Amino acid sequence: MVPTSDALLAQIEQTLASLPLSGTPDELYAPMRYILALGGKRFRPLLTVLSGGLFGAAPEAVLHAAAAVEAFHNFTLMHDDIMDQAPLRRGKPTVHMAWDTPTAILAGDGMLVKCYEILLDAVPAAMLPEVLAAFNRCALEVVEGQQLDMNFEAQGQVAEAAYLEMIRLKTAVLVGFALWIGARLAGASPAQAAQLRQAGEQMGLGFQLYDDYLDTFGDPALTGKQPGGDILANKKTWLLIYTQAHLPATAQAELAQWLAVADSAQGSAKVAAVSALMRQAGADEACRTLSERYYAEGLALLQTLGTQAAYRQAIEQLAARLMRRQS
Amino acid sequence: MVPTSDALLAQIEQTLASLPLSGTPDELYAPMRYILALGGKRFRPLLTVLSGGLFGAAPEAVLHAAAAVEAFHNFTLMHDDIMDQAPLRRGKPTVHMAWDTPTAILAGDGMLVKCYEILLDAVPAAMLPEVLAAFNRCALEVVEGQQLDMNFEAQGQVAEAAYLEMIRLKTAVLVGFALWIGARLAGASPAQAAQLRQAGEQMGLGFQLYDDYLDTFGDPALTGKQPGGDILANKKTWLLIYTQAHLPATAQAELAQWLAVADSAQGSAKVAAVSALMRQAGADEACRTLSERYYAEGLALLQTLGTQAAYRQAIEQLAARLMRRQS
Repeated sequence: MVPTSDALLAQIEQTLASLPLSGTPDELYAPMRYILALGGKRFRPLLTVLSGGLFGAAPEAVLHAAAAVEAFHNFTLMHDDIMDQAPLRRGKPTVHMAWDTPTAILAGDGMLVKCYEILLDAVPAAMLPEVLAAFNRCALEVVEGQQLDMNFEAQGQVAEAAYLEMIRLKTAVLVGFALWIGARLAGASPAQAAQLRQAGEQMGLGFQLYDDYLDTFGDPALTGKQPGGDILANKKTWLLIYTQAHLPATAQAELAQWLAVADSAQGSAKVAAVSALMRQAGADEACRTLSERYYAEGLALLQTLGTQAAYRQAIEQLAARLMRRQS
Repeated sequence: MVPTSDALLAQIEQTLASLPLSGTPDELYAPMRYILALGGKRFRPLLTVLSGGLFGAAPEAVLHAAAAVEAFHNFTLMHDDIMDQAPLRRGKPTVHMAWDTPTAILAGDGMLVKCYEILLDAVPAAMLPEVLAAFNRCALEVVEGQQLDMNFEAQGQVAEAAYLEMIRLKTAVLVGFALWIGARLAGASPAQAAQLRQAGEQMGLGFQLYDDYLDTFGDPALTGKQPGGDILANKKTWLLIYTQAHLPATAQAELAQWLAVADSAQGSAKVAAVSALMRQAGADEACRTLSERYYAEGLALLQTLGTQAAYRQAIEQLAARLMRRQS
């Protein structure tokens, strides 16, 4: 029997709340507790727990590894928010706004060290070299992905393959690692765990592309966000890259003109015009199709793995929720 | 026979230059190579190598651990320079000036992960839990020290004990760790390595207090720096804390007036006046005395340790050079 999603989430929240994120001076640790308490879907630690279950581990056996994954994700958010100069996260002030930038840098640094501390507790000594090597690789890839994302902002044109590699690094590898560590700690073979990581990366690509889709084409009544945030920020999303490549030559000038609009008073007109051109190029449907393809590839890799079919279904249900969400 | 200091330094530079600090995108890795190539005294990795030698290890056996210590030190410099808005380091643009702040944040994050990667290669699997626990503790303490330092800048008065605890965390614990890891990897017992760490912390306190002294009372012809940088920056150094506590009541108003001077045209007058008041309070001599006391305590802890007396002498000579330096 797989515990309900709500029961697992409660265990994850409890584990996160019990992490040893305190010390002197409190200014260093309060931001770590603050960002973790902002919430979120917690789907990464859920994947770790479910992936452990897939190979017969009780949730308790992998909860701290799951917490390390979530803590690492939140470390990246804390530093990314500084780089993106984001004022809000989940409707609350970001750490560098609620405190200041030096504190957000330093609390992030401390949080990254804390991830290693949590892993050191969570992983049997014999597996430590392997798990840390995998975590180091994942962490470096996430950082590489963020750097590529920043590079792209300053670049005129981005190739589709380069964009997909960027989101693989920035987003998908951590989804893969979340599944990998749960499985490996639960006794999956290295090959099985590697296949699960691959499944996670493909699903992670699917999730991220769907995220891009929702930002522009989601129902604002359901997402609760102003539509077209990416368009307003001139972000080089997959949708835009595809549109630039597939829009008829006759409409390219119109697209370029709208992209050059920086006047915020023309914001809604810009979002309406650019998203219409994206539809004209077929980017909306192509994005959904590609997202579904990655998702399906991830599911296919998952099929042959694990001993506990009920946990496989739970992973599939979680993935399906992420791929069908409206917000 | 202990290799000469120059020979060891050459080995350390070679090891640092051969660290796997490359990848895609290069914008992430170039800043790591840049800051490491700016140079420095490299006394932390030298201490690691000498401490290994004290317990019979060849330099080669601990060079990568030494490189991890130096890489960690440089990671802290990269992020501290952002927080301090420092334009120059060793006469060259700091990373956030040569690139930009987001890149300096991200390259620092990557460099911290790289430290774990280097340690993972440098440390036998059986010792990994112990060494990583010690490194995590050291890293968190360094970050705590930097946060305390920032807190003090915003605080009216700082107690002497609080200041000493801050420099212990920010500076001395890494000197202690540099000695600890060399000894422990070379086969020193946990108790011996802990005593050596303690010796390093005491010497580190001595070095840092001497640093404070040199900043204000060093010979500018020898330091090559404008004297009184700390005074101009209104830094709450040990010298100032001591002066505020020991200056006769009749001179306190004069000190407070000078401390309030923010006009840069009055900079040299401010440095001359404040340093004269420090001398009047006896802060210069008291700082030297306290620095020497920590240094002597460190040396005393070192006396009974290790099997290779020649390496003990080499550590003593290195420490003496740091305590007698004019720049």
